[in-house]
Amino acid sequence: MQTARRNLVDAELVQQFRQIVGEAHVLLDTTSLDAYGHDETEELHYRPELVLKPRSAEEIAAVMRICNERRIPVTPRGAGTGLSGGALPQLGGVLISMERMNTILRIDEANLQVMTEPGVITEVLQDAVRQKGLFYPPDPSSRGSCFIGGNIAENSGGPKAVKYGVVRDYVLNLELVLPTGEIIWTGANVLKNSTGYNLTQLVVGSEGTLGIVTKIVLKLIPLPKFDLLLLAPFSSLEKAGEAVGAIFRAGHVPSGLELVEIDALRISSRFTDSVLPLSGDIEAHLLVEVDGSHMEALLAEIEAIAALLTEHGAGDVFFADDAQQKAELWKLRRRVAEAVKTEGYTIEEDTVVPRAALPALIRGVRQLGNQYGFHAVCYGHAGDGNLHIRIRKEGVSNSQDDPEVIAALRALFMLVRDLGGTISGEHGIGLIQKGYLDIVFSEVQLNLMRSIKKAFDPNNILNAGKIFDQA
Amino acid sequence: MQTARRNLVDAELVQQFRQIVGEAHVLLDTTSLDAYGHDETEELHYRPELVLKPRSAEEIAAVMRICNERRIPVTPRGAGTGLSGGALPQLGGVLISMERMNTILRIDEANLQVMTEPGVITEVLQDAVRQKGLFYPPDPSSRGSCFIGGNIAENSGGPKAVKYGVVRDYVLNLELVLPTGEIIWTGANVLKNSTGYNLTQLVVGSEGTLGIVTKIVLKLIPLPKFDLLLLAPFSSLEKAGEAVGAIFRAGHVPSGLELVEIDALRISSRFTDSVLPLSGDIEAHLLVEVDGSHMEALLAEIEAIAALLTEHGAGDVFFADDAQQKAELWKLRRRVAEAVKTEGYTIEEDTVVPRAALPALIRGVRQLGNQYGFHAVCYGHAGDGNLHIRIRKEGVSNSQDDPEVIAALRALFMLVRDLGGTISGEHGIGLIQKGYLDIVFSEVQLNLMRSIKKAFDPNNILNAGKIFDQA
Repeated sequence: MQTARRNLVDAELVQQFRQIVGEAHVLLDTTSLDAYGHDETEELHYRPELVLKPRSAEEIAAVMRICNERRIPVTPRGAGTGLSGGALPQLGGVLISMERMNTILRIDEANLQVMTEPGVITEVLQDAVRQKGLFYPPDPSSRGSCFIGGNIAENSGGPKAVKYGVVRDYVLNLELVLPTGEIIWTGANVLKNSTGYNLTQLVVGSEGTLGIVTKIVLKLIPLPKFDLLLLAPFSSLEKAGEAVGAIFRAGHVPSGLELVEIDALRISSRFTDSVLPLSGDIEAHLLVEVDGSHMEALLAEIEAIAALLTEHGAGDVFFADDAQQKAELWKLRRRVAEAVKTEGYTIEEDTVVPRAALPALIRGVRQLGNQYGFHAVCYGHAGDGNLHIRIRKEGVSNSQDDPEVIAALRALFMLVRDLGGTISGEHGIGLIQKGYLDIVFSEVQLNLMRSIKKAFDPNNILNAGKIFDQA
Repeated sequence: MQTARRNLVDAELVQQFRQIVGEAHVLLDTTSLDAYGHDETEELHYRPELVLKPRSAEEIAAVMRICNERRIPVTPRGAGTGLSGGALPQLGGVLISMERMNTILRIDEANLQVMTEPGVITEVLQDAVRQKGLFYPPDPSSRGSCFIGGNIAENSGGPKAVKYGVVRDYVLNLELVLPTGEIIWTGANVLKNSTGYNLTQLVVGSEGTLGIVTKIVLKLIPLPKFDLLLLAPFSSLEKAGEAVGAIFRAGHVPSGLELVEIDALRISSRFTDSVLPLSGDIEAHLLVEVDGSHMEALLAEIEAIAALLTEHGAGDVFFADDAQQKAELWKLRRRVAEAVKTEGYTIEEDTVVPRAALPALIRGVRQLGNQYGFHAVCYGHAGDGNLHIRIRKEGVSNSQDDPEVIAALRALFMLVRDLGGTISGEHGIGLIQKGYLDIVFSEVQLNLMRSIKKAFDPNNILNAGKIFDQA
């Protein structure tokens, strides 16, 4: 357990916070501080000085005004499912948990919009709008536990992004508490907006460094009536990668197009007690979903895709027969990260490249593994070119702990950059990738970002030291 | 012809500019300066001191360094089709025309991307990618003459936005010359990106105030194979508005859903010599398009939509039989703005509200017309809630010239705000709407935008005085 900059919060301040958020919602005991001191990022732990659980934007604004005046670090936190350390209070100080702000405020069926608080679990939100025949597509693997507010902080994606886009494509407007304590809306509840700078899109993906989101207005779309799913084995990763490109070139837009390397699938298969047969000379599988509201069109599409995959070297294509089989296949895919972590793959990278560069990226990962002495499993959103790489190296559980891992990651990210890609597709930079940001951004770009941060947070108190350090 | 701040550019400077961009590409004659002194915004004219036509980012960077050092105002200009005065050189100084940077650099069929220079005409770009079976959907009415770079400056939309989104949904990465003369890329050529602040989305829609875009990487999608189009007349605007909502509630996502008031359609019909019969007791028409790659699914969808419209009070629904009829209907819609301008409707507003608020907005426009003595015609992208309002008042051709028009517009924009909307959906704020920005943004929001502007442009030389004034 690491802590830093303790004793910023004195007894008088604790009393002030109690008056603002209520006594029961100020946590000071070691057990709580430990619990809020880690997320899902590697094996990192940092203890805050105290935890606040506010119920409103006004309470947060009051807290921010005090912390801004006293220069106390503030770390906002959703459900703690992050993979880049964005919610870790590495500077100590105050941690603000959004867990009590968990109300879906309004499902607007006339306009296909939902207004929600940030502490709602993503899947709860999806289910609530589905009951009205509406669809909110972005669904990270952690959708059963992550908060929608955290998804906005990281600009999350998930398997549906290939057809439906990522979180930022659904965010219309945000209520935001600024680090200086003012409360603003970033835009308007409209589908098109050319009115001033796009503060909404600037805040999405800014990892809680520009303000604390307290209300969210999301665009919804009509729920597709049907979906179909297939799993195709490939004896070579390259061939699987080429098949991905062929699907789009033939004019198809699948609602899911996932790639899983055989090692990862085997581990996940054991982890989830799957009965799926995994035999033969296989290097990777593609999981392909199509969705829509006209069954005949869908059947024609999935058959055309299956034929295309076979043409590009797929083995026997497996079609999910019913909802249960679909659920099992998706469970296998969704739980890969969790499964491989239990086998020591603690370090996760979130590279993204132009889709056609995936085979080159996978070859590069293997070569770097040999060179730097780590083992990696690859899986992810092949349709988007977003490849997750889980790394295992004996005795190393954090990416900052080992000079060889650091050197290997620098080499990996340089390859990614040279392929036209970048270092995070959906997990964010947070604490653990910021040392690599110089690979993709020059000082000119970083200084623009620092100036933007300073415009929002002149005293650098909100989630400071995430993404980049102020000069 | 209005000019301002003349004599900033002396003979020595002209010589320097000639060395940078070439003698033939520095214009100083009155005819040229007049030609570059207006766009499509009302009847506004401002003459620059000189016009430069650079061919590369490096040339622009060299010009910017000089102008930044000497504090000379620079106005970037695309094709001059803007409707908010964003390309008007109201401070005099240097105007940079992007017309020579008009090469499509690469159509990447493997990744469904295109890299282009900003001076390419939008329709030329669309046609070039269509020949490869690819689709770039955003198509403002001016697509036959506007530049893709201008579309990015304004975050343009057009009729396809209801299904396919606006320009910002397609921009992956931008090469940008900063006002201080550095050249950067804003992001990476990837579909998902959570790497640092989203500079790309900050620049899209920033109306040429943060930098000059010199290369553009756009996402493309597979070209849908078929489309179908219908025109439905309504005896009441309210009923047309309600029918719009019903289409989405039934789960349809049309690729176009336009509303045109009968006065506007009559004028456009005369202007385009249309043979379309417009008779009976009609207040407005809806133009509804669906597209896709499975004809049977499309036929089922357009029939379901037609039935729904009839249920909601539509008169005889007209189905376009062939490509020629479709082209005629779209021409009628696309040329409305041009047509009504010839009849004195020079002032165009670009309001946007949540879709269901359209009937309330249209009622409000009529009431304000009676109150403030103007006549208005309404038309636009009903599916997005984006309503264009063209205003005619005897003897008034500019929205800044008449206190009653100003008062009426303030009242209109307050209504728009109260309906949950905002003052520009796709035209931008530019010069002519900035006086109304205080209706939708407080000083807190405006000061954030001013700080962002200052981070990019410390000396406030690039398109200064557009969107807002620096403090």
